[in-house]
Amino acid sequence: MKFCSQCGTKNIDYSVPAGDNRQRYHCLDCNSVFYENPKIVAGCIPVWEDRILLCKRGIEPRYGLWTLPAGFMENGETTKEAAERETMEEAGTRVRDSRLYALFNLPQINQVYMMFLAKLYEPVFAAGEESLDCKLCLESEVPWDQIAFPTITYSLELFFKDRTNGKFFMHTADLIREKSSSRFINLASYSY
Amino acid sequence: MKFCSQCGTKNIDYSVPAGDNRQRYHCLDCNSVFYENPKIVAGCIPVWEDRILLCKRGIEPRYGLWTLPAGFMENGETTKEAAERETMEEAGTRVRDSRLYALFNLPQINQVYMMFLAKLYEPVFAAGEESLDCKLCLESEVPWDQIAFPTITYSLELFFKDRTNGKFFMHTADLIREKSSSRFINLASYSY
Repeated sequence: MKFCSQCGTKNIDYSVPAGDNRQRYHCLDCNSVFYENPKIVAGCIPVWEDRILLCKRGIEPRYGLWTLPAGFMENGETTKEAAERETMEEAGTRVRDSRLYALFNLPQINQVYMMFLAKLYEPVFAAGEESLDCKLCLESEVPWDQIAFPTITYSLELFFKDRTNGKFFMHTADLIREKSSSRFINLASYSY
Repeated sequence: MKFCSQCGTKNIDYSVPAGDNRQRYHCLDCNSVFYENPKIVAGCIPVWEDRILLCKRGIEPRYGLWTLPAGFMENGETTKEAAERETMEEAGTRVRDSRLYALFNLPQINQVYMMFLAKLYEPVFAAGEESLDCKLCLESEVPWDQIAFPTITYSLELFFKDRTNGKFFMHTADLIREKSSSRFINLASYSY
């Protein structure tokens, strides 16, 4: 932030505003405070029979790696609507019976992931503008060493584990980055 | 938004930027796009024996009405940490055993609520800067006609209903505003 979006001055400071308790961008001329808050990433695990639908990323970061359809929740929608919209935008397909499946806190990058388990209406899909390719994968076909984000790897691991056990839970966890690796802690599961 | 926070121009437009599909503030000079996304409100239902802890709001909106401790999640924290921090800030008390209890989508005001069920360590609390008062209430003592927000009323209703039935679920719902009233739809419950 270089200029105040309210009064146009360059007199912007990044410090604790009066009456606050944490550092924020704020204007020393008009006293506007510019809050930054975590963003919600919503997405789906789209299922067709014994396969799940993956997308190959056509944008940075992680261009060319595989992911589940997911993206930033927009104003004016619910988390489920966001997940289904992203699935349409990135994989060109509608889903049904979406239900919350995984909720991950990523405090180090200020994100909260909400992944929904959903069914394809039909095995018809098409790579959207931000995808290079989409494919329906059996568990044995998942390119585990080419998954874009740890949240996606972990969502898929939870899904296949639940499916093997014959019972799907709703899972919550926190992703903690440590040096070059990251791991999930504070795991909890809820029955449907 | 009156000025571009990147280049300082007044040449800000609210329309669909090139390559996008929805209206956003963006700068016609430097092409910066200013995204606005839903915010997470995190809070607790703090329980001590057969009472829950309510706070009387000392700030607008809904000054003087009763609420559960809750507020905007900040960067760098998990949803649970946010809920526990708000409980400390507004009610001056630490909680333990927090677990996700209710997740509400409020698409018409771009918020997602996450309320946690939590236990007080001890029946010691103190109104914070944003509270006029705090009190431990029996169900019969809840001032139902003076609750600040429908999300708080509904969280309390779910809690007392679950407690009466002897089993606590994790609940999700969407709050839809219709004319002067609002109601919750798309209800789902998950077992712990």
